[in-house]
Amino acid sequence: MVKSMNEIIEYAKRQGRRKLAVAVAQDEDVLISVHQAYMMGLIDVCLVGDKEKIFEISDRLQIDISDFEIIKEADEIKAAKAAVELAGSGSVDMLMKGIIKTADLLRIVLDRGSGLRTDRLLSHISAIEVENYHKLLFITDGGLNIAPDVKQKAEIIQNAVYVANSLGIERPKVAVLASVEVVNPVMQATLDAAVLSKMADRGQIKNCIIDGPLAMDNAVSLEAARHKGIVSDVAGDADILVAPDIESGNTIQKALVFLGKAKSCGIIAGARVPLVVTSRADNYEAKLYSIALASIVSSLK
Amino acid sequence: MVKSMNEIIEYAKRQGRRKLAVAVAQDEDVLISVHQAYMMGLIDVCLVGDKEKIFEISDRLQIDISDFEIIKEADEIKAAKAAVELAGSGSVDMLMKGIIKTADLLRIVLDRGSGLRTDRLLSHISAIEVENYHKLLFITDGGLNIAPDVKQKAEIIQNAVYVANSLGIERPKVAVLASVEVVNPVMQATLDAAVLSKMADRGQIKNCIIDGPLAMDNAVSLEAARHKGIVSDVAGDADILVAPDIESGNTIQKALVFLGKAKSCGIIAGARVPLVVTSRADNYEAKLYSIALASIVSSLK
Repeated sequence: MVKSMNEIIEYAKRQGRRKLAVAVAQDEDVLISVHQAYMMGLIDVCLVGDKEKIFEISDRLQIDISDFEIIKEADEIKAAKAAVELAGSGSVDMLMKGIIKTADLLRIVLDRGSGLRTDRLLSHISAIEVENYHKLLFITDGGLNIAPDVKQKAEIIQNAVYVANSLGIERPKVAVLASVEVVNPVMQATLDAAVLSKMADRGQIKNCIIDGPLAMDNAVSLEAARHKGIVSDVAGDADILVAPDIESGNTIQKALVFLGKAKSCGIIAGARVPLVVTSRADNYEAKLYSIALASIVSSLK
Repeated sequence: MVKSMNEIIEYAKRQGRRKLAVAVAQDEDVLISVHQAYMMGLIDVCLVGDKEKIFEISDRLQIDISDFEIIKEADEIKAAKAAVELAGSGSVDMLMKGIIKTADLLRIVLDRGSGLRTDRLLSHISAIEVENYHKLLFITDGGLNIAPDVKQKAEIIQNAVYVANSLGIERPKVAVLASVEVVNPVMQATLDAAVLSKMADRGQIKNCIIDGPLAMDNAVSLEAARHKGIVSDVAGDADILVAPDIESGNTIQKALVFLGKAKSCGIIAGARVPLVVTSRADNYEAKLYSIALASIVSSLK
């Protein structure tokens, strides 16, 4: 069972190189991180994009990309389509966003003919390593689904469970968060949490234990849960935190990284291959961890 | 300008004792924390509640409460009403919740005849001290208002500004949070943030600088803001974080305390006196800081 970012890297190294395509690859930050992942033995690389600009960047940064496959396509949308096609046809195992808007790339991924679209919902999953917690903590969805309903939350959970499974966490504990730990009919987050818990009890969401509503403190601190008299298999030991909406998912993750000294990475799951969609504000370490995580997830069949 | 929890305590000490009433005071944790605050010279104390039970607890804990005023009232609701009346009539400067449900106490506070009700909205404000940030960070509202509309958010901000002002932060920087830093018409949090910013520009929300939408990282990290090309007086230097809803406010605060090693305290503002409404899961330190914060806020007229 993988418990830290370094273990994610080690795990990805052990399983051997997976092939990654970058959609619209003429981006400095992205080239640095895929080169680093290549040098560490995590991936083989196929860059799709403006070949001249790619070489201009690699020359300037003195990065040796001679072992990378390069598919020349200066047009942004065409390049993205070509990269998606590579992933859809099984030629590569995962896809990374280059210098293209996330929305534009996802539109292409979700196209019926893309070969990447599945019947699952796309959702974003962050993995967090923070000194004060005894294992990795997954947070979902702080990146993609704005205000998911209960059906969408069920799919969001199933995607996160899949990611956790790929890291050897066999039956992850899922805390569905709210601001309180009791069901309150005027707080939709608490109703959704109760429903999702029961769906897991009935086997409608698989391979996990779900409990909620739990407040953040109850989810990660057994002591806090005990103070409230909460009896729960999940409290204090959550693997996956399910946020009520994008704002809370996003702020938890960023608060922990920018104020709580957490390490973090993330992927989008739900397509035929994992998508690495890092932000300009992520540091190189975060990008590397994200590639490693995608690589591991891509191996679970 | 107060920058840490210890400075909150020191500031409260310097201004001298303020008088605190406890509503339904027969609670172990509450008695310990008010006794501690009394011993430190922060407060004088009036306990309203079941006198026998109060003495039974103080005897058991060997706490000397002989200098505390005690108003005997075994009935919970009557005790709460009596404590609220003390605050409403100006006999005490602040009110602390004892062993009564928050909702029950607030109902009494909000009663038209209570003397505590004002034309302002009640809202909860947390203060956070975290190693990775250069000053106190206020988060609102993670405790009271479930899904505030833009008008309520304006009042929530005004209350938080008032609290910041009382600590010598004269023109606090207010970041209105969302999951993104651009206005997106399908994300209500971003629309509210834009509107609130303009309200501050027009002087409709006073004594502060407001900017939003800001994502959590932009609000507290200048580097993250620069990566996104954000030009803002607030980015990277926020004093007050305004959460889109109760779930995000609550989870940010708890994530930082339980995973990010933050120190935290909180009060409810908007009534004629500040209210200390701590939770059973808060540690003694948090309760003491909350009393000190309320004491300072109660002095600003």
